[in-house]
Amino acid sequence: MGELPQRVKIREVGPRDGFQNEPETIDTFDKVRLIDQLARTGLRRIEVTSFVRPDVIPQLADAAAVLEAIEVPDDVALSVLVPNERGLDRALEHRDRFHEISVFLSASESHNRANVNRSIEESLTGLRLVLGRARDAGLRCEGVISTSFGCPYEGVVPAERVAEIARELRDAGAQEIGFGDTTGMANPRQVRELFPAWREALGDDVELTAHFHNTRGQALANVLAALDVGVASFESSFGELGGCPVPAGATGNVATEDVVSMLEEMGVRTGIDLPALVVATGMARDVLGRPLGSHVATAGPVDWSGAAPTSR
Amino acid sequence: MGELPQRVKIREVGPRDGFQNEPETIDTFDKVRLIDQLARTGLRRIEVTSFVRPDVIPQLADAAAVLEAIEVPDDVALSVLVPNERGLDRALEHRDRFHEISVFLSASESHNRANVNRSIEESLTGLRLVLGRARDAGLRCEGVISTSFGCPYEGVVPAERVAEIARELRDAGAQEIGFGDTTGMANPRQVRELFPAWREALGDDVELTAHFHNTRGQALANVLAALDVGVASFESSFGELGGCPVPAGATGNVATEDVVSMLEEMGVRTGIDLPALVVATGMARDVLGRPLGSHVATAGPVDWSGAAPTSR
Repeated sequence: MGELPQRVKIREVGPRDGFQNEPETIDTFDKVRLIDQLARTGLRRIEVTSFVRPDVIPQLADAAAVLEAIEVPDDVALSVLVPNERGLDRALEHRDRFHEISVFLSASESHNRANVNRSIEESLTGLRLVLGRARDAGLRCEGVISTSFGCPYEGVVPAERVAEIARELRDAGAQEIGFGDTTGMANPRQVRELFPAWREALGDDVELTAHFHNTRGQALANVLAALDVGVASFESSFGELGGCPVPAGATGNVATEDVVSMLEEMGVRTGIDLPALVVATGMARDVLGRPLGSHVATAGPVDWSGAAPTSR
Repeated sequence: MGELPQRVKIREVGPRDGFQNEPETIDTFDKVRLIDQLARTGLRRIEVTSFVRPDVIPQLADAAAVLEAIEVPDDVALSVLVPNERGLDRALEHRDRFHEISVFLSASESHNRANVNRSIEESLTGLRLVLGRARDAGLRCEGVISTSFGCPYEGVVPAERVAEIARELRDAGAQEIGFGDTTGMANPRQVRELFPAWREALGDDVELTAHFHNTRGQALANVLAALDVGVASFESSFGELGGCPVPAGATGNVATEDVVSMLEEMGVRTGIDLPALVVATGMARDVLGRPLGSHVATAGPVDWSGAAPTSR
């Protein structure tokens, strides 16, 4: 392991992954003000919504309205999740309102089947069309591979199989590959082995992004392990929202503020204003009316001034 | 950083640190059956209680009764926390029922003052007597240094100051030094710098133990960082009990089952039966009547069989 990256990129996925997984649909107005606040924390990448079928995921039926209403600084790259060509058609009606798309599939057949009712090959066939058209439209493209670190239905997912799918996505136009630890099966030793293997398989021109879930509390340890092998791009969710927590009560996505706190404390720059991010999480907590899982939003950022804002 | 340790020691501190921090005193009978269960999980070190003043910490007023009632396998080393000579006197009345003591102080003056109303020098004077007498009684001794990674009242705590206090404890008879991240201020970069410095200051004959809190979600990342620099002894608490969570709702100790899960998944042996440990946490949850913070107790251990016990 070499030197840690001096600076990393973080994509905030809460407005898509978090809002999608709330049992009660969040009001469009609340989504917009949450995204507008997130866009003023120094975050440079935000996944704002998804053009999925509104009858399947009514929580994101207002995707177009959200895209049109948000007001974010020019240096924030907005992305939308696109499941298929129909989703891309809908997204492209608002082409001037976002910069990137993310497409997704699973590295394991049974998880892909359970998630999108297709084989991996069928998914790839569709995504090639989506990626080609998105690139033609001048959009930057990320391909996200779920169950990259293990599958609840199949157990071990061979690293070479994940690499194969990643190469397919790259060849179809994806400039960034996101590796998802969908059900929190990753561990740091594995992370340190897999990313160098995937880097070798994909070459240096593709950005590798780590998307860890905190299902078993190991997300930040996996972030550290990824940093150790040169990964400098991460996805996370403010307030620890979303990430398909299974079983109920379990943790899904790692909280963005927990990632930012650890990285900044280590001297790895994120460009993100942690107190401003904690404000966004506080707003989300008020909107949702329940406590959120984020550690730093609860305990507060580390305070080295010795001001001891709380007892002990 | 070199190879990871192949095997680590874990001291379970929940029966002392966890039970002490419960607002409602736990029934002695329940404490005993929880400890008896923990002692059958493969844990080889358990801190079972503390001989603190019963009027100050009524939650542990039954220290003697617990020690006398528990039935644990011969290969489990039991320790008790001893604050001062009076506590040692009380503990020694049950000398044949335990194997180790732990003593404690803080690395920062104001935290030590707030915690035990003494200066560090006054604490050291008292602990020298305690350690000397405990060693004479054939007990193994651990000295725990709180706020080793930072102090909420003073901010940065110089590594050399922590090392000085550790040397004092070693010279007074402590065979093991526990470094406590009392309010969750440690980060992995710091952990990788501090332990080698402390190892150099203390020599190879003293066992160095890391005691991390998950206040900001970084405990397992800090465990990983400590492993990377050769630390092979940890303290944690089943069910994420205790650890003086501040503010209310914050996390204190890292959950033992989360530590065990990460280590075993990485191939670092703990000797602990994770499902049996999760049973102990389930028993604690039933006794306390509330959900506990442990991730692995909630989500279940990683299952590589592909059996998919839960959906998704």
